Amino acid sequence: IAMSRRNLLLLSNSKNHDSVYLSHVRQLLPNFFGSSVKTVTFVPYALPDCDSYTSYVRDAFAEMGINVKGVHEGNALENIKQAEAIYIGGGNTFLLLKNLYEQKLVEEIRKRVLTDGIPYMGSSAGSNVATVAINTTNDMPIVFPPTFDALQLVPFHINPHYIDPNPDSTHMGESRVDRINEYHEVADTPVLGIREGGFVKVEGNKMTLLGNSARLFRKGKDAVECAKDSDLSYLLTE
Amino acid sequence: IAMSRRNLLLLSNSKNHDSVYLSHVRQLLPNFFGSSVKTVTFVPYALPDCDSYTSYVRDAFAEMGINVKGVHEGNALENIKQAEAIYIGGGNTFLLLKNLYEQKLVEEIRKRVLTDGIPYMGSSAGSNVATVAINTTNDMPIVFPPTFDALQLVPFHINPHYIDPNPDSTHMGESRVDRINEYHEVADTPVLGIREGGFVKVEGNKMTLLGNSARLFRKGKDAVECAKDSDLSYLLTE
Ligand SMILES: [Ca+2]
Ligand SMILES: [Ca+2]
Repeated sequence: IAMSRRNLLLLSNSKNHDSVYLSHVRQLLPNFFGSSVKTVTFVPYALPDCDSYTSYVRDAFAEMGINVKGVHEGNALENIKQAEAIYIGGGNTFLLLKNLYEQKLVEEIRKRVLTDGIPYMGSSAGSNVATVAINTTNDMPIVFPPTFDALQLVPFHINPHYIDPNPDSTHMGESRVDRINEYHEVADTPVLGIREGGFVKVEGNKMTLLGNSARLFRKGKDAVECAKDSDLSYLLTE
Repeated sequence: IAMSRRNLLLLSNSKNHDSVYLSHVRQLLPNFFGSSVKTVTFVPYALPDCDSYTSYVRDAFAEMGINVKGVHEGNALENIKQAEAIYIGGGNTFLLLKNLYEQKLVEEIRKRVLTDGIPYMGSSAGSNVATVAINTTNDMPIVFPPTFDALQLVPFHINPHYIDPNPDSTHMGESRVDRINEYHEVADTPVLGIREGGFVKVEGNKMTLLGNSARLFRKGKDAVECAKDSDLSYLLTE
């Protein structure tokens, strides 16, 4: 599949400390979705209660003048086939991925985003599932999905809500860095740890980091600091 | 299978802030394993390098006068069949569980511990796999195991390295409590969050919390504080 039509916005987080849903990207969204998009198809599968999650997101998007259709309202596969744009929200990544496979949406979402070029926004778990696989989620494995492979809209992993180790901690559990390094002891796909407030915008084969800085982990190399607004297109091809 | 012969020591963590491996339980171990146990069979599968992990643990046990045999040294299944006692160390829970299934050890460990009554010690990931399933591990899913179901030596979950939420945090990612509550939105098995330094000792149908306090989470109920040295036998039968 060609990647030249993809149009993605992958957020580390959706809810901010000011408690306003998506406050850090609201200004960008009308332009991201484009004037031809009247309705965004929302995928609430990362939380158990799809109706209340959709209602919450619908209210937030209404303030931006965008309609929301829950993918679970009617036939999910048909809703993806008809979607003008897709937004997959956060919650639990394992629950989300399991539901995507159970509803047989994985192939169709890939086709709509990569072939038809409809906009895809993901936040937190919705960004994890946009990548190669969910191996670098922070979530607990509360349900068992059929695989960890995900939508593969980009060829690397994201670690959302990335947080630096606390040098004063006496806790013996692994830091986020320890956990990502554990992954690179058994695999070699790069991991982009996006700090809260940060997100990547992908247009075809161009990728820009916005909103905050990030930390890039590659097997066998020192981690690299990526400044806000930097071009990360090389991660789409390496 | 009857549970009356089980003899378990399930630790939240193995390495302490003083950096001395197993320092918080060393005094107990000769009595726990018993004078008839000359050699403990160590399962290093939670880390990628089994040889160096076994060598590290062998040195620590040598100081206690106990021999260590790595389960991977020779035929793993045969080593479990011959084991006088089993110790499964920490690392990554997904890697550990995948290796246990690949080496076809799950049934045999269950039989040796529950039917033959040989002592089983686990720490961190080794405690996670001793329970019903690994759903409440803190680890990243770095590899895909065939199931999350585990050794089922006890009928509840453990969350090792349990840590209370930091009320001053502005991080929007889930706290440990949030994650455990997410699990109880989709399932109802109790989760015992054992703070570092804490462990449970299970003798047949009696269970005691030692070393530190713990926090018990049950679906639809307020979390309960469990004091150090309290009797938690009710968790084995409810
Ligand atoms: Ca989450
Ligand atoms: Ca671990």
